[in-house]
Order: sequence, then C-alpha cells, then structure tokens
Amino acid sequence: MSENNENIQYKINDELIEQVQSLVESKDDKGTLDLLSEYHPADIAEIFDDLDLDQATYVIKLLDSDKTADILMELDDDDREKILASLSAKEIAEEVEELDTDDAADIIAELPEDRQEHVIAQIEDEELAADIQELLTYDEDSAGGLMAKELVKVYETWTVAGCLRRIKGQAENVTRVHSVYVVNKQEKLIGRLSLKDLIVAKNDQKIADIYKSGVDYVNANEDVEEVAKIMAKYDLEAIPVVDDNTTLLGRITIDDIVDVIKEEADKDYQLAAGITQEVEADDSIIELTRARLPWLFLGLIGGVGAFIIMEGFQESFSKYAVLFFFTPLIAAMAGNVGVQSSAIIVQGLANNDVKGSINSRLIKEMLLATLNGIILALFLFLFVWGYTKEIDKALAISVSLVAVIIMAGLIGTFIPLFLDKRGIDPAIATGPFITTSNDILGILIYFMIAKLILGI
Amino acid sequence: MSENNENIQYKINDELIEQVQSLVESKDDKGTLDLLSEYHPADIAEIFDDLDLDQATYVIKLLDSDKTADILMELDDDDREKILASLSAKEIAEEVEELDTDDAADIIAELPEDRQEHVIAQIEDEELAADIQELLTYDEDSAGGLMAKELVKVYETWTVAGCLRRIKGQAENVTRVHSVYVVNKQEKLIGRLSLKDLIVAKNDQKIADIYKSGVDYVNANEDVEEVAKIMAKYDLEAIPVVDDNTTLLGRITIDDIVDVIKEEADKDYQLAAGITQEVEADDSIIELTRARLPWLFLGLIGGVGAFIIMEGFQESFSKYAVLFFFTPLIAAMAGNVGVQSSAIIVQGLANNDVKGSINSRLIKEMLLATLNGIILALFLFLFVWGYTKEIDKALAISVSLVAVIIMAGLIGTFIPLFLDKRGIDPAIATGPFITTSNDILGILIYFMIAKLILGI
Repeated sequence: MSENNENIQYKINDELIEQVQSLVESKDDKGTLDLLSEYHPADIAEIFDDLDLDQATYVIKLLDSDKTADILMELDDDDREKILASLSAKEIAEEVEELDTDDAADIIAELPEDRQEHVIAQIEDEELAADIQELLTYDEDSAGGLMAKELVKVYETWTVAGCLRRIKGQAENVTRVHSVYVVNKQEKLIGRLSLKDLIVAKNDQKIADIYKSGVDYVNANEDVEEVAKIMAKYDLEAIPVVDDNTTLLGRITIDDIVDVIKEEADKDYQLAAGITQEVEADDSIIELTRARLPWLFLGLIGGVGAFIIMEGFQESFSKYAVLFFFTPLIAAMAGNVGVQSSAIIVQGLANNDVKGSINSRLIKEMLLATLNGIILALFLFLFVWGYTKEIDKALAISVSLVAVIIMAGLIGTFIPLFLDKRGIDPAIATGPFITTSNDILGILIYFMIAKLILGI
Repeated sequence: MSENNENIQYKINDELIEQVQSLVESKDDKGTLDLLSEYHPADIAEIFDDLDLDQATYVIKLLDSDKTADILMELDDDDREKILASLSAKEIAEEVEELDTDDAADIIAELPEDRQEHVIAQIEDEELAADIQELLTYDEDSAGGLMAKELVKVYETWTVAGCLRRIKGQAENVTRVHSVYVVNKQEKLIGRLSLKDLIVAKNDQKIADIYKSGVDYVNANEDVEEVAKIMAKYDLEAIPVVDDNTTLLGRITIDDIVDVIKEEADKDYQLAAGITQEVEADDSIIELTRARLPWLFLGLIGGVGAFIIMEGFQESFSKYAVLFFFTPLIAAMAGNVGVQSSAIIVQGLANNDVKGSINSRLIKEMLLATLNGIILALFLFLFVWGYTKEIDKALAISVSLVAVIIMAGLIGTFIPLFLDKRGIDPAIATGPFITTSNDILGILIYFMIAKLILGI
C-alpha cells in the first residue's frame, strides 16, 4: 500500500489515540468533544478499538446521539455488543432513532430477545418502531433483511411540479435519494425516475408520461448474494424490494451491497485457508483457536490415514524404500491441484461463469490435469532416473503422479459442483477439505499404481 | 444459491441463445433487433459468450451504438479485443462517443498503441477527445485512471436558482449525479452539495451559504485499492479526484469501486489457491495451464526437496521406519498452519486491521501455535503410543509436531508482514508458496528433533 496518505484527511495514529485516552481519563469533556468533533464516526469507531469499555461508554454518553449512532454502526460486533449492554433501553432507543431503518433493525436484532421489545417500546416515533418490527421479521440474509424502508415514492398520476413539492417532504428523511419510485394506486411498483430526470423535466409534465418502466427489482425473500450479483451486473446503485404482489416494500442501496461483497469474499478466502467463523487478526487467541483448530484436526486425521496406508504397503515395498520418500511430493501435488481446480469452480460459480454440464467440466479438467500431469511427470521421471539410475522406479513414480494429478483435478472439480447442485455453499470444499481428502487418496493411488508397474 | 430466480427479469438460458444464433444465421435483422431490444447490455454481453466472432460482430454492427457501447464494456477483455479488432477506427470512435469518459478511455487503452491515435482522431466531440487523452496519461491502477471527467460543478458565488438552471445543462451529460461539487474561482474544490440539498433549499439562497465543506477527496495518483478502502469506510457513493493543488479533475463512483473490490478479492483468492494471472473457468486449457503450472512446479521442487531430506535421514532412521510414515502428516500440518496464519495476516492487512509491531504479532502467533500444537500433539501421542506401543517414538513424533506447528505459524505470520513492509503484495505469500516452504522445513525439523529425542 502507498505510503503517501496525506490526502486521507482523517488518519488515526497512536498519538491521537493517546490524546483521546488522556482526555477521557482526566474527564475533560470539552476537550474530548472538541477533539472528536473533527473526526468521522468511522474514524471514532477505529479509535474505540484502543479504548477500554469504560472509556468507550463514557465517550458514547458524552457525544450527541446523531454521531454516536453512526459510531455504533461502524464498530465490530463484539465491541458494539458490550457497549449496548452498558446502555439502558431508553438510551439505545435514542441512538436507534437517529439511524436509517435498516441500520436500526440491525442494531436491535443483535440485542438479546427480551431487550429487543423493551427498546422498541421506548422508541417515540411510532412509524419507525413499526418499520423496525417489520424488518425484524425477515431473514438477515434476505433482501428484506438488508433493505431500508426509507425511499421516495410518487404516484403515476402526479405532475412533475407536484412531485418536486412532495419530494421535498419525503426526501428530508432519506439520506440519499438515488431514484424516485413510481407506484400505481394499488402501491404496486411500476417504474422509476432519477432525481436528474425530474430536474431536467418540465414542471407540467405528468409522471405517467416520463417515468421509466421495466425497473429492476428483487423479492424480499431473495438471497442477499443474489441481490449483490444483480446490482453488480446491472451497475445499479439502488434496487427496490417488493413482495409477491410487487407491492413496494423498501430499497437496498449499493453501500450495503459493498459490505455484502466484502464479507462474502472474506468468508470464501477464510474457508479456502481453513478458517471457520469470521475472525480477525486482532481477535483473542481463544477465538482464533476455535476458528483454526477444527480444520487442523481434519489435517491430523488425514495424516493418520496416510500413515495407515503407508504402513499397509510397508512389506510390499520393503525393497523400494525410495518410494516412501516421494509421498510428501505426491501429497503436495494432489493437494495443490485439488485446491486450484476447486478454487476456479468456486469462483466461477460465484461469478455465474460456470456454464455447461458437470460432465463437460470434468472432461475439461481431465484434459487439463493430464496435460499438466504429463509435463510435471516428465521432469520428475528425469530427476528420479538421473538420481537413482533405476528406470523402473522412475517410471512407476512418474506414471503414478499423472494418475494422482488427474484424480485430484477431478475431485477438486466435482465436489464444489456437487455441493452447489445440492444447495450447499461450494466454498467449504476448498482448502483443507480438498487437501486432506486428496492427500489420502493420492497416496493410496500412488502405491497401488507403483505396485502394479513394479509387478510386486 | 437460490433456485427461485423468477424475479430476475432478464434470465439468459440455452433456448434464448439458440434463438439468437438462428436469427443471426438466417440474417433476420428485424427479428434479432426485436428480440435483443428487450435485454440489458449486460445480458447481451452474456449471450455473446456463446456466439462466434462473426455472429457477435454482426450483432454489434446491427444494434445502435448507444447499446453496443455498453455491451462492449460488459464483455470479457478477450472477447472485446477480438471484436474491436474487427471494427474500423471510425466505428470504434462512434462506440466510444456513447460512453462516459472513464469507460471510453478504458476501451481505447486496450487498443494497440498505433490504433489509439487513429480512433481518437476520429472522435468528433473535441472535448471528449481531450478528456480521453488526459485520462490515458494516468496509471490504470491510480485514482486518475479510474475517474470519469463527467461531474456537476458549481461556483460558490452562484444562487440555488441559478445553480438548478445551470445544472440542467451539465446534468444531461452525467449519467448519475451523486453530488454537486462546489469550487472557488480558482477551480479548487471547496465542498459539495447533494441534489437533495439543492431541491430542499430555497431558491434565493447562495451556494456559499449552504454547501458542505470538508468534503472527502483523493489525489489523482492515489492507488485505487486505497480509494476503495476510503469509499467503503466512509460509505461514499462518489469521491472527487483532485491534483496536487486540489483543483477538481474528475470523480470516481461506487460502481467502479465495486468492480475494484471484486477484482481484488478474486485475485487474492486465486493467489491463495496457487493460480497466477486472472483466469476464469471458461478460459482455454492453455490459459489455465499457464496460470496453474508454475505453482505446481514449485510444489514439485518442494517435493523433491522433501525426498532429498528423507533420503538423508534414511540410515539414521533405519530402525525407525514408522517415522517416515508420518511425513505426510507433518507436511500437511505445517502447510495448513502456515496457510491459516498467513491468510489472517493478508486479510487483516487488506482491511487495515493489523495493528502493533511485527514482534507483537509473532509473539501472539507463537502462543496460538503452541496452544494448537499441544492439543493436536496430545491426540497424536495417544494414537501413536496406542498403535505402536512404543512411548519413545510417540514422544518424538508428538514433540516434533509442536515444533513444526510453531515454525509454520511463525513463517506464515512473518512472510506477509515482511512483504507488506517492503511494498510487495502480501497475498502472494499465501497458498503454494507458504505450503511448499513449510513442507520442506517441517520435514527437516521433524527429523532433526526426532533424532535428538530418540538419541540416534
């Protein structure tokens, strides 16, 4: 990353953090407020990483709730949970009232069930309370769970002038107006207008004459990853959410989708690296162990499996000890090829790039693995022949390698495709899962083929 | 992924593709136009994946250039290159004139150098030609290379009414107006206004009185990944780009950043899986081989290294053949731990989550690896002891495992941090690179420690 960050106006450094800590410790309310007033909520959330709970709660209670609500949204889940636990239901309700409905519902969803009702009961704005209660009914991974109720809606029968007048009222509650959604009398979504279209249009035109029909929309039950794909594909900055009768319910904006895309990418990356549960470098050793140890156990079991296979072949190969010394090579190649082919399929599935049948995929991977396998085996053959001067061993090892690479490529291709067909996230099939199964199978195939070729 | 995709209005299926192919083959211009008129450019680009070059070029020449320009933008780089090669400079110039400056510059940048000038010379709009020429001067990974020249700019001295009038003119060329940027007489960026602010304001107010100062901006030379981080952190939908004197040059919108984030995530994922060069599941076997084979060679060399180490220890361990059967286990554990720890660091660096010194990171990883190592070694000890009834071997193998896991964790933590400090993308340190080096080192440490414990 570049060193030249002067143009990021708000940069958190150790000096600033120490300054905040000492102001808070000396209970200098005015100094703290003055200093923090210059920083964006996302920056203050970053400063909070280095404050202890008492200090953080103190700052939250000191700042205005319009700012603290945004800070709460930017915090890590763990930190937010702790701070919310130290606030009263009334205090949380005040924070929540400053947020858009989607963020408000997210915060409340994180509270223990018994607190949720208390907080909602304390929200003074009845419409907001009702909106939050509606949003809480949706699955958090659905379009309904991601959408906000804030949007600007006009009826097809309105004129541009009337529209602009009424929008002024609606728009004050909507942080960002991307599109104005056009509905008919039955509240069904029939089209959209951009603010620009409205500004450019003549005042006496009817909305019915200028709106764009054929608007993209998603059902409230649609999976958020699917929504992310649609918005990315069609370069949308906002998408309306409807129910089964195309009644307009809410809208999803691209900033929420950016978070979905990043979280999804992080999750897939971690799965490929053998880390379950979402952890960060700064999490505790216990949390990190919980995320890493299960996959290491899988590796341990795989290693024990490899041991048992090798021991089983010990007698047959008593005169061919050299073959045992190539098992790490065989296991590594099987693992690498499996990870490569599964990663390409997982990524292709995520990007909707994988076309054709499973069979055609397997045939392609077989050709690819055969080509790669023969090239690699040729080098290995020359090395082993040159090193041991025994052509039969060199041949046995090299031919086995080709077979192992083909097997690894096929398994790496098949498993994610199979999981995807079954509706299971194919990303779990990358990393340790593929490496471990390919290690064991690879070593087994290696000894079986070597045995055949050497005529033992 | 969900099966329930009915609400995606435009869904490409085999039937549609066959329909397009047969209409094109029978030169049914009207039928082709009627059918494709219902589809979004992104969908038509998807259909193009299944057309041959002649068919695709035929469709491009048939459709209006406002639609084909968007289709060209959505195509894979390879497909676009082929189609552009079959168009004349004049035809490309016509396409380019329909695009925003950033997309126009991207298309032209992909052309061979000698064609670039020809195409620019054919662009009738002189301002567009000048904008494109300016954009071509920036590095493609810099903010300048990503920005578009289209934006809505107002002077602080204007009134709201005058502003709205003039915006109507400017806005017609700007697809999406997120913010109106406020400049002073010297064209320096001093603040911004949302369209909503303008609509809500009174007509006789001065811009100077209502604009928001302290606008976020980036320098044209800033790295695009840094821009993506800033926009994601502050939830920005557009960010203005300035030169060293804060003169307003252009703006970057969130839809371009979504592409940057996805590409970056894809690249990191592929590096972790041992795939260089950006490839897709549908690329040719040759392209896929070129992306995969180099890392497999690395694995092969690692395997040969492991063979040489094992052969070196052959005599010492002639009575302890069982120890050789655990090398796949040792290699797998070293690889898995290395990948886990490097992935956490790489992801932490990408998300700006890694704080503190390298030393404090290494100490934390050492504690973590020791904890995980002891738990795993305990299980292995019990298995080997139970299986072989020889406590000294069980002890030697288990103690070595702890040492190997600690070594693997430290290497996995250190290498990405070291690369990052040196300004090298730490993502290359995940996957095969870490696995291979940890395999060899792991096996070496394993035999050395086992030798020590068994007193050979």
